[in-house]
Amino acid sequence: MAPIPKAELRMADMPRSRELKGREAAPGMKTATPGCVVPLPDPFPLYRGGVLRGAHIAFESWGQLNSARDNAILLFTGLSPSAHAAATEADPSPGWWQRMIGPGLAIDTRRYFVLCVNSLGSCFGSTGPASIDPATAQRYRLEFPEIAVEDIARAGYETARALGIERLDVAMGASLGGSVAIAFAALLPAGARRLISISGSAAASPFAIALRSVQREAILRDPDWQGGNYPPDHPPRNGMRLARKLGTITYRSATEWRQRFGRNPIEGNALRASPFAPRFAVEGYLEAQAERFTRVYDPNCYLYLSRAMDRFDLAEHGGSYRAAFGASGVENALVIGVESDMLYPLHEQAAIAEALEQAGVATRFARLPSLEGHDAFLVDIPRFDAEIRAFLA
Amino acid sequence: MAPIPKAELRMADMPRSRELKGREAAPGMKTATPGCVVPLPDPFPLYRGGVLRGAHIAFESWGQLNSARDNAILLFTGLSPSAHAAATEADPSPGWWQRMIGPGLAIDTRRYFVLCVNSLGSCFGSTGPASIDPATAQRYRLEFPEIAVEDIARAGYETARALGIERLDVAMGASLGGSVAIAFAALLPAGARRLISISGSAAASPFAIALRSVQREAILRDPDWQGGNYPPDHPPRNGMRLARKLGTITYRSATEWRQRFGRNPIEGNALRASPFAPRFAVEGYLEAQAERFTRVYDPNCYLYLSRAMDRFDLAEHGGSYRAAFGASGVENALVIGVESDMLYPLHEQAAIAEALEQAGVATRFARLPSLEGHDAFLVDIPRFDAEIRAFLA
Repeated sequence: MAPIPKAELRMADMPRSRELKGREAAPGMKTATPGCVVPLPDPFPLYRGGVLRGAHIAFESWGQLNSARDNAILLFTGLSPSAHAAATEADPSPGWWQRMIGPGLAIDTRRYFVLCVNSLGSCFGSTGPASIDPATAQRYRLEFPEIAVEDIARAGYETARALGIERLDVAMGASLGGSVAIAFAALLPAGARRLISISGSAAASPFAIALRSVQREAILRDPDWQGGNYPPDHPPRNGMRLARKLGTITYRSATEWRQRFGRNPIEGNALRASPFAPRFAVEGYLEAQAERFTRVYDPNCYLYLSRAMDRFDLAEHGGSYRAAFGASGVENALVIGVESDMLYPLHEQAAIAEALEQAGVATRFARLPSLEGHDAFLVDIPRFDAEIRAFLA
Repeated sequence: MAPIPKAELRMADMPRSRELKGREAAPGMKTATPGCVVPLPDPFPLYRGGVLRGAHIAFESWGQLNSARDNAILLFTGLSPSAHAAATEADPSPGWWQRMIGPGLAIDTRRYFVLCVNSLGSCFGSTGPASIDPATAQRYRLEFPEIAVEDIARAGYETARALGIERLDVAMGASLGGSVAIAFAALLPAGARRLISISGSAAASPFAIALRSVQREAILRDPDWQGGNYPPDHPPRNGMRLARKLGTITYRSATEWRQRFGRNPIEGNALRASPFAPRFAVEGYLEAQAERFTRVYDPNCYLYLSRAMDRFDLAEHGGSYRAAFGASGVENALVIGVESDMLYPLHEQAAIAEALEQAGVATRFARLPSLEGHDAFLVDIPRFDAEIRAFLA
């Protein structure tokens, strides 16, 4: 089968993406970024029961698929990003991993065809709880079936297949995306030759579960959530703000913040009118993060993906991590963990790396001393660049 | 001056305490535990401005004051407890430090007169935002002046003075109480001969500030808070629940929870009716903690004390921690930190101990390997018993 020229793919799919902008972006929020969508197999059965009809996945891509179709990297994202990992012709704004993907960068688009998918269940063009159910012409909301990390992995693979790629050179991801990449390996024997898991988790700890449980409760208890039936232009903003602020706290590290904010006062004092208004610079940072997120992310999608992160357990696939990786067909793996990551700590990364080794996968386990915690992959680019560049070289 | 017999103190003050039960306990919540109250100097000026009129402090005590009045230990509490640190004749229910205070225990009541105060600004018998303002006969609510850690320290000292104690043998506390004990040393030269600070903070880190900021916001954004004017029987329960759950997450450690809860399912499945109901045992634990706290604690008091913890900075007293301790007159100090404490981490305890040493105070710094995080002093009794017993011996 001949390679699908990149330009053709893009042209074929752009109109569908444009349609999305009005219909399926998160309610009352920023419209989906330009990109492509592919339909998923219809019906698309889900890991924990139920099926999706007429579902699709939004993706963006960089570089060219070679004629052997064996140079593709499938990139899964964390909980909140879209597929816009780097600038494209259609959307030249910087992506969330702009400094990692491009010609000559660690993920070198002169060599690789890089495909980033918006997770199934998310709200940036892929089918999720904020999408219109074709059966009812209404938004799914809580009628959407439960989404599992496994479903996100399989939907990513189907996206690659729709582009004519049967085996990925690399399946990779960070945070939730790391867990998805792991699930990909367990679920899809020979689906990928290599695996990169960054600050992912094979099974969330009670600490991570507790944090996400409180984040979800903040949304569920916001009267504006209305049992999931909030109007598109009136989402449960207060609950989302709290959820994101708490998330933000767990994505970085106390050490980084001590150096970055210390006990500096917040800039501007307009807020001082209230006796409990923010006083410290770190509170201003949380505020900015919460505002930005709340404007673009759909609360029901957040709840669905957050729950999926809690429930994922790699050991469901064969009884142990090792067994899960045993049939993966993965030849080489890179597992990156960060010393200051409180959410998916280093010992969880070590367990993933160890299971891969035991399953016969040649594995490099990189323990990075970055200060930026769980988010280090977005910030401490030099260290991640070096590891990923060396692995892909 | 002859010692005030313990029995006399108790009798003299009990009627005032009984009055409290109906009038001043947290609104709609458990009434104040039996105990004693003493009036504060009237007016009582506050560290950040404003004065209190007719304020008082609730306390409980154990052991006998000797004739020299030099065997008194003043114990400050964390954010949430009452003065009921151990059982008394008047209230035989177990106290929050029951295994530490008593005849033959680490804080040996055969030798020491132990005095525990309910913090100024709290809601278990001491004057705070939930109290009746004598000037208006209404609850203070947000009309209450800002409370600082320094005010809690001074109110504790005035409580001791009201009992005829001019110099404490030991000022001590854990968590917020540790910060109060430190403030006590800085503010009250010769107020105490010895100091014990457990998992306290000389100045909160941006990480701790961020966590408390989100806790406060959960309450402030609860519509039931009503700008602080909630009816006593209808407090902002949802906000308080979130605040306490988040607090609970930071009071323990991920390692302890991994051992204790793992990924065990929650017991009982009645809650499963909701798609986002708790599934994991750790969520049931958070739920129980939140329910218990929300029943007894006043939300405005919580906001006031939480803000006080953020704003405290020992360096305000003389320009440095060392200078703050320089005039304290403290001869010996014990600083205890816990390796797994994420809220007030070990390096903050080390900074306190170092400053004490530099100020000429003979200091023991104990780094405990307890798994129970910030709350270890309530749980890992053997380790704390050994350190405190040795220091007091």
